[in-house]
Parts: sequence; structure tokens; C-alpha cells
Amino acid sequence: MANFISRRRFTIEWGHCDPAGIVFNSRFFEFFDWSTWMMFEAALGVKPPELGAAFGIVGIPLVDAGARFIAPTRFGDTVELTAQVSEFRRSSFDVEHKLLVRGKVSVEGKETRVWAARDPADAGKMRSQPIPPDVTARFQLA
Amino acid sequence: MANFISRRRFTIEWGHCDPAGIVFNSRFFEFFDWSTWMMFEAALGVKPPELGAAFGIVGIPLVDAGARFIAPTRFGDTVELTAQVSEFRRSSFDVEHKLLVRGKVSVEGKETRVWAARDPADAGKMRSQPIPPDVTARFQLA
Amino acid sequence: MANFISRRRFTIEWGHCDPAGIVFNSRFFEFFDWSTWMMFEAALGVKPPELGAAFGIVGIPLVDAGARFIAPTRFGDTVELTAQVSEFRRSSFDVEHKLLVRGKVSVEGKETRVWAARDPADAGKMRSQPIPPDVTARFQLA
Amino acid sequence: MANFISRRRFTIEWGHCDPAGIVFNSRFFEFFDWSTWMMFEAALGVKPPELGAAFGIVGIPLVDAGARFIAPTRFGDTVELTAQVSEFRRSSFDVEHKLLVRGKVSVEGKETRVWAARDPADAGKMRSQPIPPDVTARFQLA
Repeated sequence: MANFISRRRFTIEWGHCDPAGIVFNSRFFEFFDWSTWMMFEAALGVKPPELGAAFGIVGIPLVDAGARFIAPTRFGDTVELTAQVSEFRRSSFDVEHKLLVRGKVSVEGKETRVWAARDPADAGKMRSQPIPPDVTARFQLA
Repeated sequence: MANFISRRRFTIEWGHCDPAGIVFNSRFFEFFDWSTWMMFEAALGVKPPELGAAFGIVGIPLVDAGARFIAPTRFGDTVELTAQVSEFRRSSFDVEHKLLVRGKVSVEGKETRVWAARDPADAGKMRSQPIPPDVTARFQLA
Repeated sequence: MANFISRRRFTIEWGHCDPAGIVFNSRFFEFFDWSTWMMFEAALGVKPPELGAAFGIVGIPLVDAGARFIAPTRFGDTVELTAQVSEFRRSSFDVEHKLLVRGKVSVEGKETRVWAARDPADAGKMRSQPIPPDVTARFQLA
Repeated sequence: MANFISRRRFTIEWGHCDPAGIVFNSRFFEFFDWSTWMMFEAALGVKPPELGAAFGIVGIPLVDAGARFIAPTRFGDTVELTAQVSEFRRSSFDVEHKLLVRGKVSVEGKETRVWAARDPADAGKMRSQPIPPDVTARFQLA
């Protein structure tokens, strides 16, 4: 059963772009990060700064991130960025991001994140935790 | 006669914030820059990447920027950011930015920018140009 | 009596620059921030992440920042950035930054920061504190 | 035959870090980008802004980037970042980045880039070009 797709639209800013007039690569990873937070808010109804407290976790840290740059994204482009959990595992999950410019996929991204709580044995560390079934259920399309 | 006020709302992202959990100072200057572009689009009806060609300029480069940080702006805060030209001079102008959190001004910013064209004597340089009266007129409230 | 000048040299990166091929304004405020941390390390012999604990403060938050952009700073430029406390007051201080390209001042910056501790009446807030005389003494040139 | 390894050391800045006190993910991609430019400078003896003109290309645009986050990198950490071309192909190449904190690999990165010239049929576009053998030879260890 597929998970729901979160979407947002925004415009590429001057400050996002490099001397080639296209988005500097690190900016896409900022875009992906924020899309993931917004997808969680949409799915769970919990605002980003309250996510940790609501679920007894410290956060959903990234363990892997990647992007494929298919076509340039330029200053002033209106983009649509979609995010979707492609797979939930026991204590980690993958998010797929697609950035569309004029309806065509310009960048594809992928994040792997962990559902992480404070380590009971060492408060300075984090440990992955099983993702609660009522969390994953909220991402599923009816 | 006062100039119109451009407004936008957005949410403070995880990636905007520093280890103190508040917006890192440089981010406000990104916010101000983009607000100025959006104010010009709203006033002139010209999209940011077309501004130069529409008016025969290379851009509106910053010559001075400043901010006063009155109260912390935090991860997840919904902010309202306003921009207004406080003064048009012959070939430069000032923009005032106010960032409001829960209705209170949290940061005040100010930019001084120049209306700049390519220097006819040296294409690698810019020169300030008189701001056309039909440009300044578009910023004035009726 | 003047305070000592902290200096660092670095090269302007591709990712620092905007479509005009020059440093995007917000980057200078990143540069200034880090220069201030490095100046404190040089003056006090305390590494940035240990500054708070060493002096019983939460940090040296910015209350005001500004920059004057005199000449463009370009991709690949080797720059020298100097920082100097221009004035120590009871619980706040000003830092002057100068960015030099090929020996000429390209950008001048100014920060006003506060010596801030946790508010004893409300641990979630900060309060300015008197700057210890042995701190200011370490900045003075012999 | 292995290619040479380019190394640089730097310190993690306050502004690189997020509210968890660790480097925000997008910053690593800035670090990788600049390491690649510096590796080219070290191998070819050509400064970054002159690379295009020296080889008749428009640049070495990224087509793929990824990172694996193994251990957190914190404010104030002194890091060593290495870059090495793991494979040169006809007109593209892979760069491997390793970020070490206290001698342990904290982040691994990978970039795929293209040796790109202006498209002779459309100056607004880029086309991949064969990488000259004297370029690849400069990366090889004796």
C-alpha cells in the first residue's frame, strides 16, 4: 500500500543560485529536509518542533542522503517538490523527493532516516527505536 | 507619501537554526534579500529573473545591510516578514524589513540598494543609474 | 588602548557566490560570526564550544549586525578578514570586521554582541551579564 | 592505478550546526563541492575561477551527489576532509569524500560530475566532452 505524497510549491531565490545561475547543490538538501518535516506534520498533525515530545524521540536523523540532478533549476523557477515515504522499516525509513520544474522532474532525492530516541544507557547518545504502527498507519493512503 | 508594504509568511525551518535553537543571523539577510525581490515583483509586475532586462539594468546590488535582533526567532515559528521602501533617492533606495513573530517585531532589517546598469565605459563594471520615475511611482500608495 | 586584531585568510568558494559571480550578502555575516568566535579563541585561549562553560555564560548573542559593501568579492578571491573589538561596554561589545581583497577593504562589518547568562529567574531566557575584567584585559594590546 | 588524495583541515563553525548541535546535512555538500575544486587546483595547478578557460569547458557540473552519515560531526570539531577521484570515465568522473573526526570516518560522500562544454548547437546548453588524457594523467600517483 503506497504512502501519501506531500507537495509544496516555491520559487527559486537569487540566494539559492550559484554563478552558473542555477541552484547550488547543497540547497536541494535543505529543500528535502524541510519537505520531510512538512510531510510529517501533514501525516501526523504535529508541528515540527513538537515532533520529538509527541513521540518520545529526539528526532528523525538522516543517515543517508542523495540526489540525482537531471536538469538545471534556475533563478525564478517555480518548482513543485514532492515527498513520499517509499519504505518504512522497523526503525528507519526512506523518503523520496522529486523536484519538478514546468512539470518535468529536474532533481530526484532520497533520504534514509532513523526513528531515534535518547539512549537509556547514555543520555548523550541516540538509539534507533521501533517506529510505532500508529505512525506508519498515518502515512498510508486509505 | 508612503510606499506600499509587501508581506509574506513562512515558517522557520530546522536548517535555519543554530545550536541555540534560534535562527542563525545570516539567514535573516537571505530572508531580506528575497523579500526585496518579491516586493519589486509585486510593485512592478515583473518576475525577478526578468527585472534586469525589463529596465535595462544589471540589478539592484546591496551597498549596505543591517539588522537589529530584538527577540529570538525559533524553529517552527510562523513569521510575517514585511518590506517597504523607506526612501527612494536619485539612484539608490532603502528598504525596511520587519520580521514579526506572534505579532511582535522580532528583527528589524535595513538594506540600501543601487539601481545599477552596466558601465558603458567598462562592461565588466556597474554604474548607478537614475531610478525611472515610473518605477518609483509604482511603489506609492494611491 | 586598542584591542588586538585577529586575522584569517581564506578563499571565496563557488558556493558562496550568486548568479552575479560575487559573494551573496548573507555569507559575509557567516564569515563575521566565525571570525568573532576565532578572535575569542585567540584572545582567551578557549575553544568555541567551551566558551560558555569556561565563563558561566550561554554565549555572546548578536543584537545588531551590519555591513557596508564597498567592492565586489568574487569567486576564487583570496581574502583577509580581520576582527577587532572596537568597544567593550559593561555587558556588551562591538566587533569591527574588515574584509580585504588584494589589500583593499571590500566589505566592512560591525557586530554588537551581549555577554549573556541564563536568567536565574527563568532558565529559558538569557540576561546580559557584566563582562569580567579579566576577559576584556585579554583583548588589550600590551 | 590510484589517483592522488587531496586533503584539507578545518573547524566546524557555529553556523554549520543545527539545533541538535551537529552539522546540518546540506553543509557537507558545500564542503564536498569546495574540496573537489581544491583537488582540481592541486592536480592541475589551475585556480578554480580559471578552470573553465584553461580547458575550454564551462565547468564540472554535478549530476549525482550522496552522503552517508556515520557519526555526528559537532560544533568545534576539527575535521580532515579528503577527496579522491575514484573513477574517470570518458566524459564523467566520480569523487569520493571522507570526513574524519579524531581519525574516524564520520561522513562518506560521493559526487559524480561531468566534464562539460558549451553545446556548439545551442550556447545556452552544456554538453559533456571527453576528459583530456593530460587531465586524468595529472591525478595519477607516480
